[in-house]
Amino acid sequence: MKVWEGKRFSVLVENGIEIADSPGAVAIVAVDAADRVVLVRQGRPATGGELLEIPAGLIDPGEEPLGTARRELREETGLRGGSWRELASFWVSPGFMRHRVTLFAAEGLEEGVPEPEEHEELEVVRWPLDEVEARLPQIEDAKTLAGLLLYVRARGV
Amino acid sequence: MKVWEGKRFSVLVENGIEIADSPGAVAIVAVDAADRVVLVRQGRPATGGELLEIPAGLIDPGEEPLGTARRELREETGLRGGSWRELASFWVSPGFMRHRVTLFAAEGLEEGVPEPEEHEELEVVRWPLDEVEARLPQIEDAKTLAGLLLYVRARGV
Repeated sequence: MKVWEGKRFSVLVENGIEIADSPGAVAIVAVDAADRVVLVRQGRPATGGELLEIPAGLIDPGEEPLGTARRELREETGLRGGSWRELASFWVSPGFMRHRVTLFAAEGLEEGVPEPEEHEELEVVRWPLDEVEARLPQIEDAKTLAGLLLYVRARGV
Repeated sequence: MKVWEGKRFSVLVENGIEIADSPGAVAIVAVDAADRVVLVRQGRPATGGELLEIPAGLIDPGEEPLGTARRELREETGLRGGSWRELASFWVSPGFMRHRVTLFAAEGLEEGVPEPEEHEELEVVRWPLDEVEARLPQIEDAKTLAGLLLYVRARGV
């Protein structure tokens, strides 16, 4: 039973359990031609400040996760093309939310011009792959920690 | 402005942004005397099935995160005592939720009898530390991926 409906998510009660229901999302560990990981810094009102995260976004109705991921990476950072693979897929808050994130790795990307949406204010930040571990304490987002750690482990950095 | 209030979380609208507001939580990478990581498998209605996760729980009013973490680990697995340190602290869904998780590592633990809450049905699962990497594809929870990867990296496994 839907007990509340908003613009970005709704609240269901199923068998007495309250669930925040949202569309699925994607997140991308994108590595540029200089072997730098691409991050975005943006205001996150729910957290009371700015957060440094891997590029991510919600899956639009009818979109496939890979299509969303390519679109979001291009919009947020300008990066396009390249070779893509799925790294993992996970729930971010299984006690409360029906919200699953599909995580991709993207390599061999070409540079381009970002096309942010009107309401988005993003700062693109690039970290050399061999400095990711030392900088991990700057990350306060679960999907970004999981994504960077999975990627550097797979790469043997 | 609070627009919906449930038993486990509420929904706020702040400057036009919808936010699911919940108490903070803790999660624990607990390693037993045989160098096995302790996980719990439980039904998670929001996900439509069971999930294998590190022990975790919500911070009760007036509790400190470390106190919550020791209590939750004892209740869910029976493990107690030991030496504890904070591994990280992160948001799990910064686009939607005001919900921050403090992650601890616990080692040198003593075995005891679990004291699950009435509504909890948990299966405790233990993985040898040197098998964690090969079994990671079984994990579909962001805090568990981040926690296990941070821990094995710090241990050099």
